[in-house]
Amino acid sequence: MATIKDVAKEAGVAVETVSRVLNNRGYISEKTRNKVFNAMKALNYTPNAVAQGLSKKKLDTIAIIVPHIVHPYFAKVISQLEKEATKRNYKVIIYNSSGDERRESRVIQICQSNFISGVVLFSTDISKETLDSFHIPIILIERNPVGNTYSILCDNEEGGRLAAEHLISHGCRHMVAIGTINVADMPGDTRESSFQAVCAREKCSCSIYRSTPEEYASMEYYSTIEAALDENPDCDGVFCTSDLIAAQVIQVCNHRGKRIPKDIKLVGFDDVNLSRLTCPSITTIRQPIREIVAQAIDTITAVNEHKEVKKIITFPVTLVPRAST
Amino acid sequence: MATIKDVAKEAGVAVETVSRVLNNRGYISEKTRNKVFNAMKALNYTPNAVAQGLSKKKLDTIAIIVPHIVHPYFAKVISQLEKEATKRNYKVIIYNSSGDERRESRVIQICQSNFISGVVLFSTDISKETLDSFHIPIILIERNPVGNTYSILCDNEEGGRLAAEHLISHGCRHMVAIGTINVADMPGDTRESSFQAVCAREKCSCSIYRSTPEEYASMEYYSTIEAALDENPDCDGVFCTSDLIAAQVIQVCNHRGKRIPKDIKLVGFDDVNLSRLTCPSITTIRQPIREIVAQAIDTITAVNEHKEVKKIITFPVTLVPRAST
Repeated sequence: MATIKDVAKEAGVAVETVSRVLNNRGYISEKTRNKVFNAMKALNYTPNAVAQGLSKKKLDTIAIIVPHIVHPYFAKVISQLEKEATKRNYKVIIYNSSGDERRESRVIQICQSNFISGVVLFSTDISKETLDSFHIPIILIERNPVGNTYSILCDNEEGGRLAAEHLISHGCRHMVAIGTINVADMPGDTRESSFQAVCAREKCSCSIYRSTPEEYASMEYYSTIEAALDENPDCDGVFCTSDLIAAQVIQVCNHRGKRIPKDIKLVGFDDVNLSRLTCPSITTIRQPIREIVAQAIDTITAVNEHKEVKKIITFPVTLVPRAST
Repeated sequence: MATIKDVAKEAGVAVETVSRVLNNRGYISEKTRNKVFNAMKALNYTPNAVAQGLSKKKLDTIAIIVPHIVHPYFAKVISQLEKEATKRNYKVIIYNSSGDERRESRVIQICQSNFISGVVLFSTDISKETLDSFHIPIILIERNPVGNTYSILCDNEEGGRLAAEHLISHGCRHMVAIGTINVADMPGDTRESSFQAVCAREKCSCSIYRSTPEEYASMEYYSTIEAALDENPDCDGVFCTSDLIAAQVIQVCNHRGKRIPKDIKLVGFDDVNLSRLTCPSITTIRQPIREIVAQAIDTITAVNEHKEVKKIITFPVTLVPRAST
């Protein structure tokens, strides 16, 4: 079997040059790169990255586990994670857990067995006991830290506050907040509670509605939205804890002849592409997704280098005004 | 260092049971699984998957290279690929190439060096010469086969035909087709050409507009859409070669006071989630994305098993009628 030395000889370059081509390190001219590739091909050489991984005991890969890949929030998270990981010379493996705790646990086990550098996990259910059974860095996004894990959050409380203050300053008095399933102790639940607190302080009414697990799984929130609008005929301001829900509020209002923003003003959450693609476009609370996933990767690196790492890091949010308010 | 035998002894189970837990093979009770995990933890045992990969010379991972992860079509492709890969015991690594041919080539090189089973590649530019330099199965989606690669397509021609016949049967006479950048010999280009052919046969006018590479990169097609509507004031039917473009046609029509479907009828392409989230929802040509990615995986498996594989496989499309026509 050909070695890296044989390839260097065949290509007429230094061994170090072949190594740089193999590892995508430093500048290599296209001409040299082709010479090396052609030599590898001629010798049927397969660089032994698995053996390299074995010697390093790490394959420089990060795994991301999400409940829904097509949900616009997770699609943006995956996209940004891939970009930030590439900048830091990590590869990314993705897993869709469908929110199933057993599958999450098995996937983490697979990651551990494969020398994955760390796991970025979006999970509401997986237990402390299960998480404690792993010895691989696990970064939870939008969940409080459990056992040995680390947490990265956005400032959910501030998000709810900004949304309420924005709607009130635009004249809304009768609010509806539509959120996702209530799971005890999830940081995201403070989006609605802080929204409600501002409404109470400003003497505005506020009813909170929560979607069902079935709606979350199908990503269709129409039943909850219909119920919220049926039971609050005087509603003039709606806050949704995701832009995906907000897009569906626009559809339901449209069918009911309610005009946005004239009759009802609407604020979403996340700032995903969808919020710019609807009619009207959606005023939203922007999560700094790029910064959040970059921090997740940097935390994995730091843990593996045995550096001191903060258990919880919270990122600020901002309100992005668009046509729906 | 602890071995699998030590773990079995510590857990009080057979070595085969530990192996099944490690490889997620067959049914294992949660109790037994926990016993094995606890034994592994107590002994600080790390299963040597890299060495396993080395002996098998395959890590059972498929790589997908797309130009845009957040584009709704690619988000759906990735989501379906992950599901179908999991069913077949493959893991999925994702790469965003931003459509850069050099990056695509480097990524394929990395995949080859890492014993990736095969690559599912969405690329318009990468050259035959570059593709020929690899000895890893490469499956091109929506591109004609080049050298050693395999192609999986949807029936683009039929899609354009269905769109034109649908618009004409709904009374449209003055058509605009808005497509993506024209790249010589791309199968997707027949979406517009077959649309135009039906219009000509039925004595309807049809102007074709193509977005710029900058628009494709930013995923914002507003300039091309504005130009198409400016230059065709009597347009009553629009066909877009993606639902993403169609969603933006709705926004532009809205700003111009053109009502969809009353003044202009609209047909998209892909059938991604977005087509159900707009107001009105978008009539579209459905690509069977699940079937396409499942076939891509099965082709990789077959190539690696040295089985006979078709060079081009084409999947049928269907028209999904919604509120925009």
